[in-house]
Amino acid sequence: MKHLKLGIIGFGFMGQWHNNHAGTMEEVDITAICDMDPAKLEKAEGAMAKYEDYHDLLKDPNVEWVMISVPNHLHRQVALDAARAKKHMIVEKPCAMNVAEFDEMYRAAQDNGVLFTVDQNRRWDRDYSVVKKVLEEGKLGNLYMIRSSHYGVFGKMHDWHVYPECGGGMLYDWGVHLIDQMLELIPGRIVRIAADMKEVVNEVDDYFKLWFYFDHGLTAEIELGTLLLKHMPRWYVSGDQGTLVVENIKADEGALYFPTGFRPSLPETAKNLDAGPTRTFSSKPEEAVREEPIPEVKQKHNDWNDFFRNVIGVINGTEEMAVKPEQVRRVLQVMELVRRAGESRTVIECPEGI
Amino acid sequence: MKHLKLGIIGFGFMGQWHNNHAGTMEEVDITAICDMDPAKLEKAEGAMAKYEDYHDLLKDPNVEWVMISVPNHLHRQVALDAARAKKHMIVEKPCAMNVAEFDEMYRAAQDNGVLFTVDQNRRWDRDYSVVKKVLEEGKLGNLYMIRSSHYGVFGKMHDWHVYPECGGGMLYDWGVHLIDQMLELIPGRIVRIAADMKEVVNEVDDYFKLWFYFDHGLTAEIELGTLLLKHMPRWYVSGDQGTLVVENIKADEGALYFPTGFRPSLPETAKNLDAGPTRTFSSKPEEAVREEPIPEVKQKHNDWNDFFRNVIGVINGTEEMAVKPEQVRRVLQVMELVRRAGESRTVIECPEGI
Repeated sequence: MKHLKLGIIGFGFMGQWHNNHAGTMEEVDITAICDMDPAKLEKAEGAMAKYEDYHDLLKDPNVEWVMISVPNHLHRQVALDAARAKKHMIVEKPCAMNVAEFDEMYRAAQDNGVLFTVDQNRRWDRDYSVVKKVLEEGKLGNLYMIRSSHYGVFGKMHDWHVYPECGGGMLYDWGVHLIDQMLELIPGRIVRIAADMKEVVNEVDDYFKLWFYFDHGLTAEIELGTLLLKHMPRWYVSGDQGTLVVENIKADEGALYFPTGFRPSLPETAKNLDAGPTRTFSSKPEEAVREEPIPEVKQKHNDWNDFFRNVIGVINGTEEMAVKPEQVRRVLQVMELVRRAGESRTVIECPEGI
Repeated sequence: MKHLKLGIIGFGFMGQWHNNHAGTMEEVDITAICDMDPAKLEKAEGAMAKYEDYHDLLKDPNVEWVMISVPNHLHRQVALDAARAKKHMIVEKPCAMNVAEFDEMYRAAQDNGVLFTVDQNRRWDRDYSVVKKVLEEGKLGNLYMIRSSHYGVFGKMHDWHVYPECGGGMLYDWGVHLIDQMLELIPGRIVRIAADMKEVVNEVDDYFKLWFYFDHGLTAEIELGTLLLKHMPRWYVSGDQGTLVVENIKADEGALYFPTGFRPSLPETAKNLDAGPTRTFSSKPEEAVREEPIPEVKQKHNDWNDFFRNVIGVINGTEEMAVKPEQVRRVLQVMELVRRAGESRTVIECPEGI
């Protein structure tokens, strides 16, 4: 089996993460790492080459692939240079600052005959895999609402993620995952986008809620905030035959809910002091809803390395590349429209659909 | 103290509700009831006059006020006749099918010198009173998100509420409360409205989510569904200094949440297998958030009669009318725009603000 001979460019949080995770895989050889800061390089144990200038790493013949894990605004230049050096590349997400940058980067990869993908590793997360499976099985009936939420309590963001000029902000950092998942999950074209974006306790966006109006009538929702102090489920999905809730990324809490057909008997003189004068929303007896555990997902690993398994499969000709450039481009396109919708506080039309 | 001498026109669910609730108040005399269906009239115990034709009730000198609790599409004609008969009136919500009807009804009331109000009784609900108090006290800091949600499990709606031509559907039935509350809660003008409306298991709207873009930058959310099988909090409100959650209408569950300033220490080689490679959203230790009980609200009664106490106060000159015609009109205006936004699946601009 061919190994992934990987040089990591940018040895910050994600660079170190990849060394500590993908680096433990038998089929991954971290052959080189690079960072401008020698103190960071010292953190790495192992026999890999260490560089302070990525141009030097790009000359290293033991590097066949590069992981570009520098801050977002630097992806473009490193990718262009990597392509010219004939290195295949994995770019950390978000791939680029915008679609124009992406097009330039991907064209360089094509011109130089190198492979190009992006670390959209959260396509393999358990929560997402559960939602995907439930939707594929059609157990909820006709889907009419889906909400992907991610609530945090720490408020403040980290490192360069707080600087807009570095591609900071939560839309870039986490939005790119949540959008990528939603686009893979929901077939169809987006005809319209609404967005509410806020800078709550950071100088960059740290709260957003998005609506994607799909051509088939579903309006998918995404919401994220770094200062939303009460947990809400990671996913809330409902069709006309049932509801799915997945509480967290581990997917160790959550359930499927189905109506039993139970109807409350209304007293002769309607009284329901809990909720006031309402019948449709009167107190809910337990027998009205049947609960099922969320399904098991076939996921051999829970080590955050499934993205790399796919790349290794690609190298060995056993798998198709999961994260395709055209998908990455579409997510960036959506993110640009989200920003426009957020800044103008109005809905953005996508005339051809996206 | 002057009594409210009330004739109830329409002795269905709400008519009977008022007889059973307001009718027990010392200052309320239900002097007459009216319904086309004699079987319904038989349900009422007491010495009140009973009519099958509301024109007869309107001639009854013991009736000074009427409660118009017929189906929504009949409010207009009954209100016009009541005004001509010089009866003050309480109209059940939603007051009218649209703004044009409202204008005609209210003009008739003014022309005939009778008082006019609408049973927006949920301005006195405990959940809403808690949110109002917390916002007045400013404990959450700068408000950046507010969501009012109402999730039910029974799916199917009742009686004439399933017929669009009668003013059925959940926007009319419950939306009018949720919108009325939000408009009273959040000062400012609405510049734009987005809406997603669905007919999930009824022939009328039984799911909707709404965004109100306020001129000051807040985008308030309302969501309701009759088939959302896992409970979600009735209110989720967050400012830059804290979060408020009120679970239900009784407001016997919920809390205020504040950040403690606790920051997680990141291990040298960042690992967090619960949530994958993320710091801002890494596992949340309990010490990061301080919880406070939701405040007590000064509410003497929990009997759903506070709306009537206000009307009695008006009659006796001790209180101003709480539910004002101009507020009712604004809610109807918003509802018309919500329908347009829902039907067109786009955002509706309110050029002057509403």
